[in-house]
Amino acid sequence: MHIRRIAAVLAASFTLGLPAWAQQVIASAASPGKVIAVEVQLDNGGKLAYTVKRRGKDIISPSRLGFNLANAPKLDGGFTLRDKAVSEHDATWEQPWGERQFVRNHYRELRVELEQPNRGKRRLAVVFRIYDDGIGFRYEFPDQPQLRDAEILDELTEFTVAQPATAWWMPAGELPGLEEEIRKSPLAEIGIANTPLTVRLDDGTHVAFHEAALVDYASMWLRKVDGQKLRAMLAPSSHGPAVVRHGAFTTPWRTMQIADNAAGLYMSDLVLNLNEPNKLGDVSWVKPSKFVGVWWEMHLQSGTWNAGPKHAANTANTKRYIDFAAKNGFRGVLVEGWNRGWESDWGHGGADFSFTESYPDFDLPALASYAKSKGVRLIGHHETGANLPAYEKQMDAAYRLYAKHGVDSVKSGYVHDAGTMQFAGSDGKVYYGHYDSQDGVRHFLKAVTEAAKYRIAVDTHEPIKDTGLRRTYPNWMSREGARGVEYNAWGNPPNSVDHEAKLVFTRMLSGPMDYTPGVLSLVGAEGKVFNSTQAKQLANFVVIYSPLAMAADLPENYEKYPAAFKFIRDVPTDWADTRVIDGAVGEYATIARKDRNSKDWYVGAVTDGNARTLALPLSFLDAGKTYVAEIYRDGDGADYRSERRFDLVVEKRNVTAKDVLQLKLAPGGGQAIRFAPQR
Amino acid sequence: MHIRRIAAVLAASFTLGLPAWAQQVIASAASPGKVIAVEVQLDNGGKLAYTVKRRGKDIISPSRLGFNLANAPKLDGGFTLRDKAVSEHDATWEQPWGERQFVRNHYRELRVELEQPNRGKRRLAVVFRIYDDGIGFRYEFPDQPQLRDAEILDELTEFTVAQPATAWWMPAGELPGLEEEIRKSPLAEIGIANTPLTVRLDDGTHVAFHEAALVDYASMWLRKVDGQKLRAMLAPSSHGPAVVRHGAFTTPWRTMQIADNAAGLYMSDLVLNLNEPNKLGDVSWVKPSKFVGVWWEMHLQSGTWNAGPKHAANTANTKRYIDFAAKNGFRGVLVEGWNRGWESDWGHGGADFSFTESYPDFDLPALASYAKSKGVRLIGHHETGANLPAYEKQMDAAYRLYAKHGVDSVKSGYVHDAGTMQFAGSDGKVYYGHYDSQDGVRHFLKAVTEAAKYRIAVDTHEPIKDTGLRRTYPNWMSREGARGVEYNAWGNPPNSVDHEAKLVFTRMLSGPMDYTPGVLSLVGAEGKVFNSTQAKQLANFVVIYSPLAMAADLPENYEKYPAAFKFIRDVPTDWADTRVIDGAVGEYATIARKDRNSKDWYVGAVTDGNARTLALPLSFLDAGKTYVAEIYRDGDGADYRSERRFDLVVEKRNVTAKDVLQLKLAPGGGQAIRFAPQR
Repeated sequence: MHIRRIAAVLAASFTLGLPAWAQQVIASAASPGKVIAVEVQLDNGGKLAYTVKRRGKDIISPSRLGFNLANAPKLDGGFTLRDKAVSEHDATWEQPWGERQFVRNHYRELRVELEQPNRGKRRLAVVFRIYDDGIGFRYEFPDQPQLRDAEILDELTEFTVAQPATAWWMPAGELPGLEEEIRKSPLAEIGIANTPLTVRLDDGTHVAFHEAALVDYASMWLRKVDGQKLRAMLAPSSHGPAVVRHGAFTTPWRTMQIADNAAGLYMSDLVLNLNEPNKLGDVSWVKPSKFVGVWWEMHLQSGTWNAGPKHAANTANTKRYIDFAAKNGFRGVLVEGWNRGWESDWGHGGADFSFTESYPDFDLPALASYAKSKGVRLIGHHETGANLPAYEKQMDAAYRLYAKHGVDSVKSGYVHDAGTMQFAGSDGKVYYGHYDSQDGVRHFLKAVTEAAKYRIAVDTHEPIKDTGLRRTYPNWMSREGARGVEYNAWGNPPNSVDHEAKLVFTRMLSGPMDYTPGVLSLVGAEGKVFNSTQAKQLANFVVIYSPLAMAADLPENYEKYPAAFKFIRDVPTDWADTRVIDGAVGEYATIARKDRNSKDWYVGAVTDGNARTLALPLSFLDAGKTYVAEIYRDGDGADYRSERRFDLVVEKRNVTAKDVLQLKLAPGGGQAIRFAPQR
Repeated sequence: MHIRRIAAVLAASFTLGLPAWAQQVIASAASPGKVIAVEVQLDNGGKLAYTVKRRGKDIISPSRLGFNLANAPKLDGGFTLRDKAVSEHDATWEQPWGERQFVRNHYRELRVELEQPNRGKRRLAVVFRIYDDGIGFRYEFPDQPQLRDAEILDELTEFTVAQPATAWWMPAGELPGLEEEIRKSPLAEIGIANTPLTVRLDDGTHVAFHEAALVDYASMWLRKVDGQKLRAMLAPSSHGPAVVRHGAFTTPWRTMQIADNAAGLYMSDLVLNLNEPNKLGDVSWVKPSKFVGVWWEMHLQSGTWNAGPKHAANTANTKRYIDFAAKNGFRGVLVEGWNRGWESDWGHGGADFSFTESYPDFDLPALASYAKSKGVRLIGHHETGANLPAYEKQMDAAYRLYAKHGVDSVKSGYVHDAGTMQFAGSDGKVYYGHYDSQDGVRHFLKAVTEAAKYRIAVDTHEPIKDTGLRRTYPNWMSREGARGVEYNAWGNPPNSVDHEAKLVFTRMLSGPMDYTPGVLSLVGAEGKVFNSTQAKQLANFVVIYSPLAMAADLPENYEKYPAAFKFIRDVPTDWADTRVIDGAVGEYATIARKDRNSKDWYVGAVTDGNARTLALPLSFLDAGKTYVAEIYRDGDGADYRSERRFDLVVEKRNVTAKDVLQLKLAPGGGQAIRFAPQR
């Protein structure tokens, strides 16, 4: 026996003669253009639900809202409406760097305040922001004596997808750094998924489920409950409820970007818009740029991170990279393996790293000064072995050292071979747990805000997912957070041929990725070959956005391919505008971006294992102007499955906004184009 | 970057020239009849896996083993083999009550002891018991100074089903009392499932995943990771790691019953065999029997649990039930609503129940004595509102009171409308959490062992799942743990027509169920009708096993149907033997059982919404003897969808072991037969 029995017994006290399961709409609102509508409902047990419609069609069927608390009865029923309000907002803000310079934030907000009259009058608000391209909603916990400390065991938020759908997803809570391969399956067959979770409904509508502004809360995973009903699952803590908060707080925004097609998902700025504005003030010290580094040779196993005969981060080798960067216009030179500790069993969290002591063969002050003389900056590196207590102890000194030597960006790493992070418990014990637990979420942001004090930008590897916090903390420039090009060096399997075409419409919806593209040699360790043509390596610089973009190959390899390398030298990493021309998840993508510092446009197109001819209407160019298109395309016989993967044709032609180019992509291929106004 | 990179770097240190993913078999064993074989493997990272084959065919492909700990590095890799041993065991034990009197326990045990040489030499053992009808395995944590306190965050045990399969499953962690409807879907589409999880592989093999001997540990849920890979998920604790244990301990057994067909699953005694023998000594005071009670009238809303004009548990009404029980040979009379507290908001955990104070209109001593004079016993009732601190405080006094009045069985209830149980934390705080968390598991067993001190048997409603502990604690006689007949009174929806045919091969694999069958009136509250014929109500007494079996209908209804009622009066609840004649999950089931106290056999058959003719070979009867078969069958036009659901034919014929009866079941129908040797 249970609840329903009681519901029947108690029904008389709060029904209006409706059957027990009936939903009553208590509030509703539509987006500014009336594209998307949200309804909020209460049933006769006072349980809260919402629905989402797009152009009158159900996207999300009635889906529950609420919480399961560890220290108090559930916050999921017995609610009555206390107040509601609808307001409209329209503002445009400027990004210090990004995919576009100006972002419009136009939405209607529906605020619903609830109370549990028979549960100590506990209050909870749910706030929806409804855009023409999606919605976000979050919970607000007021400071209330009945619930001063919220210990959240589960968030009961559900997302019931109204139509059969296909999902592109990645299991959550598995590999650290979100480095699982991206799966495709019917939505009904997903397990516990990370977000962004990209879903294509059978009518073609695309929806991306994600969250915005993940601060001091556990990451939201999505688990399938039944059929197409998904429910939030908070990344568990190792030593208590998933989330513990004191006083008033808000949860992250639960977001759904909704569009007619895959391209529309990527065009949405909803996640950024739901983050707080810049809290750092002047961020002119955050510099979008390209870099090279002492890195790929370790992945090829010709160099080592640790000291010894093959130690790559030695002074002479680093100088070689500085010279190469200076000669070719790269601002940064990353050096990994420069500091003591790599001999330890670091991949198992036993890291004994020093973040301030160099190996004897690496002269940090001399190299920093040499770089500066050449107009180049070293990029710092902090590998933590996911041992947070050890890292946090040294963090301040580590940033201070770098700042002293003019190192204004740091790549951090959180490798752990079993996927568990070490946290310092408030009880003095060391706990092991998920990267994206509330503890982990706190650390990753702390590493960024501490860096900001030293005017240092952060590029996090093995990170938690991006939720748009770069708006609030623009020094959090990039991160890894998916399988990067390194998997082509040693991955088993290496990245699949459709990897980029999946990334664009899944991982890339969350924010920039340090993908380490541009390996023109197309070969990894032990002769492993890339599932890519050379042209695709160039296209990736446009397709996979990062304000800090590595040209990952060895200098000697770039010297072998000067024609292709020219594109890598030219391509910028900061954009005035971005247009997704076309795309299908896991199949292909064509993206056009306008340079923030010139009148040039750049286009990148990538395909999966299929050859394609993609139309590229040039209407994004200024009308009436002639542009020189420098085209880097697959040769006619190019194919990622043979040595013809190197077949690259570079050609120029004059074009105008009226032209439509036909981009011919080889199997596993791509195309990169620079459009510069004719002088 | 992560693990695999490191794996490559470190590979040289522990490979034998094998590729990194290669598995090396370190131990193996087969069942006594060589039907089932288990292999245990280590990969080059020292990760542990196992496989299961049946008749040479893969059932479980390589599947990981291990743990994620909160207070120490993962116990899931870096293992080396320390020792292994295979032994064979064959014994037969007697059940004090059950589906069969004698149970054979014949298996080979494979014991694998592992060590993590580079992780402080931590040790772990995995012990497999391999039967011809399935396997069980468990982990053994030795007492070791490096891991004296184990804080288990996740159990990483996987079950990768080797063939496409269909699953019958129930979402875990949802409704309290396991009262979800049972779903059928491709295995790849399950969410987080309770066990028993019944699976039919595409080649017809049936596998039931479950656990045995769940003691001082969190319940195991199964979550789909990817494809057909399931992983253990421990019911979370609200205030720390899922499981916290000190010193040496063993986990529950993870079990797979494996058979050619559904019938074979139910015939397996594997789960009971994996439990410890009786720890209570003499249990002759545990009495299998039938009962009636003050109960159904509350579900019909003609009576109330709480005091007032319609209070059902009044002295006069109880006497009426005692008289009815005495007249018809029922041993027990359950009385719900006898005690103070039902006026409170008890369904929300705010229970203010007294377990010792009767309502003024209920005279416990007088009724107990009146019952005794009639050869009848009262059955006690403890509704706790899932408020464990309140219940545990009164538990001893409550049992003592009942024992004093000769009440030797108690039905307990754990209703909570939001599905959360209240626990007393060791820190003095009240926590809210899952019924089947480690806290809940401890409580449910405590309620049984405390009852045993007073020689009281327990019938738990809104329980955790059964894992065979009745072998160890034979006073844990029955429990609810699925949707009972009460759902036909007020359920929305009521129980589906295929409910019993699902229950037999899912829920019933775990143990007895207090299903409250035998509602011959076939009508619930407000005129709701049952998805059942009257004959099926009789068949349920045989099909759905419980040593404590309620005849749930009102006495006045039984008086309306004396012919049908005779079967309910006759049918025993304790068996010398049980044979599943035939069945298909969710379609039909025919079960024959031999009375423990006579030479009679009983057969029950149920079907789903389809009419069926089922062959019943009588070879289970003693050869050469003539039996009188009293057949209770659906009338020729019977149908659960019309008033013809009452069409019941009772007829007698003489039969022998050589006969084959053809059981004609109506849509939604059933058949019940008593076979008594001719005198």
